[in-house]
Amino acid sequence: MTLAVRYTAARTLDTAPAESVEPGPGEVEIAPAYVGICGTDLHIFHGDMDARVTTPAVLGHEMSGRIVRVGPGVEGWQPGDAVTVMPLRWDDTCPACRAGHQHICQHLDFIGIDSPGAMQQRWTVPATTLVRVPQDVPLERAALVEPTAVAVHDVGRAAIQPGERVVVVGGGPVGILIALVARDAGAEVRVVELSAHRRSLAEELGLVTWDPAADDVADLLRAWTGDAGADVAFEVSGAAAGVETAVDVLGVRGRLCLVAIHPRPRELNLHRFFWRELTLVGARLYDRSDFEKAVTLVADGTIPADRLISKVVPLTEAPAAFEALESGGDVMKILVDCTDHAQESTV
Amino acid sequence: MTLAVRYTAARTLDTAPAESVEPGPGEVEIAPAYVGICGTDLHIFHGDMDARVTTPAVLGHEMSGRIVRVGPGVEGWQPGDAVTVMPLRWDDTCPACRAGHQHICQHLDFIGIDSPGAMQQRWTVPATTLVRVPQDVPLERAALVEPTAVAVHDVGRAAIQPGERVVVVGGGPVGILIALVARDAGAEVRVVELSAHRRSLAEELGLVTWDPAADDVADLLRAWTGDAGADVAFEVSGAAAGVETAVDVLGVRGRLCLVAIHPRPRELNLHRFFWRELTLVGARLYDRSDFEKAVTLVADGTIPADRLISKVVPLTEAPAAFEALESGGDVMKILVDCTDHAQESTV
Repeated sequence: MTLAVRYTAARTLDTAPAESVEPGPGEVEIAPAYVGICGTDLHIFHGDMDARVTTPAVLGHEMSGRIVRVGPGVEGWQPGDAVTVMPLRWDDTCPACRAGHQHICQHLDFIGIDSPGAMQQRWTVPATTLVRVPQDVPLERAALVEPTAVAVHDVGRAAIQPGERVVVVGGGPVGILIALVARDAGAEVRVVELSAHRRSLAEELGLVTWDPAADDVADLLRAWTGDAGADVAFEVSGAAAGVETAVDVLGVRGRLCLVAIHPRPRELNLHRFFWRELTLVGARLYDRSDFEKAVTLVADGTIPADRLISKVVPLTEAPAAFEALESGGDVMKILVDCTDHAQESTV
Repeated sequence: MTLAVRYTAARTLDTAPAESVEPGPGEVEIAPAYVGICGTDLHIFHGDMDARVTTPAVLGHEMSGRIVRVGPGVEGWQPGDAVTVMPLRWDDTCPACRAGHQHICQHLDFIGIDSPGAMQQRWTVPATTLVRVPQDVPLERAALVEPTAVAVHDVGRAAIQPGERVVVVGGGPVGILIALVARDAGAEVRVVELSAHRRSLAEELGLVTWDPAADDVADLLRAWTGDAGADVAFEVSGAAAGVETAVDVLGVRGRLCLVAIHPRPRELNLHRFFWRELTLVGARLYDRSDFEKAVTLVADGTIPADRLISKVVPLTEAPAAFEALESGGDVMKILVDCTDHAQESTV
């Protein structure tokens, strides 16, 4: 019998037996190994996305695992292959798809939100979603490929050039990943983050951080850029004050890449956008090239994935981990271990 | 004796004798012929820009005229030449200038706001600001080159491609000019405008208009673009509702070009920017290539400048014209006639 983590109602998760689904034509069955808990999963847990999610819902879209069974007509994949999944299914017919932007298909099925996710012991998905993980990459680390692909996409949307000065507002997992990918692209990076724990981890990774509660960001910016301001800012905080900071730090023709989800409209200093000819660019998800780049960055250690993993909990303890994450605390990324071994060890 | 229109205090303009300024090295003295009243001039008149403007201030930056005297060292210009002026002086040393964005120099002198403008009978400016007007272009029409250059710049910032669907929110002079320049660039255009008078003028120019008070813009958009939405929107209204409309009409990867001045922060649907990967791009002023393109568009009739001129008033009646504009009314562009002849005819 296999187990799944299920969202059943606001602030309620359980673990329950799940049916293994025979892979149909073009599908594969995976045994998920590690599944990261994402901010979006927390939004679902809070009940914020009940209009979109059909309960009981199996969460999870940041994953690594191995193929168990291969359905008819699937070529190039074998049981035992290490994989991660780009959890997107698009319709190929909507205006976004026709324009080549399948990743933001107007009828996108985001697997793990709109259909069952990876936080279970067997998971059947289309083979087209598979992305190969090199055999020498530990599966724990491979679970960070998906959020790294987000960061690769964001840095691409911001069109960062070597030598540019970049401010990342919000130093959670995605913010740190953006900072690392931007640095790898040749940018000078500053991370603005309130949490001392997260700042400390960022500093350990060689990133310079600013504390907006204690530091005068305008002074630090001036010391760093003179009169020029930053070239690029990433808004990854989701907070009103974060939006304000991200606008204020930008110099003439600066680009603000909007990564965080702001469910409600935010006040924006449009006059500054006019005066300095700023650009705001929305960034969502990733495409296959972002995912493949992310595999490379995790595999070659550019992304020190192991340093970002705060904790690994067995699947049966996932509900408690969600509750702990909700109450904050000094944490970066928590992985759920879905392997049989992990469940046995907790018995 | 020459006359000037002077802003002396909030809601107060007068006409007063002005000293003619001998053109120094690199300068020319112009006899302004026609000077348009711009929205920015009205902002000054309202007192909104008192922190920036030194009184008494001679307004005016949308102009045409003829050279009267040429200072030492000026080459290529002769008395009698028909000209318009790109009213920008930059410092060439700030970060914006060094990055090649002189038109948004961080210490920009906008002539007509930060230094004396064109609403006078003699005006001395650097020869570097001159832009030649072909001899066969009536000077009334040439007064519309400056706002046309704004529109050319805006359409350039939005990077409009042939066949794209464009919504212009706000059908005042700049909005209409943007619509005409976008149409000339091959776009399909809709103009959203509340004023029946302005809609009627736009329709006469062959533009399709939508009335946001009477029409269901979402329905019209669907009938026009199906499920896709518009490629580009221009926010030229300056109103909160205009910002909302400009965001709502955009399809996936749509671009919102922000033209209007919003002195206070506005609520913006950032979630839509994320979800559809929209781009917001600020646009301010113009550069020389925009100005030269604008001369061509006015000269060849692509911009039917005469149709946009609602009224021409002699300089002595400019104060009354500002008051009339402030109270609204069915008006597009008002020109101030600064020629000697116009003043004599009112005696």
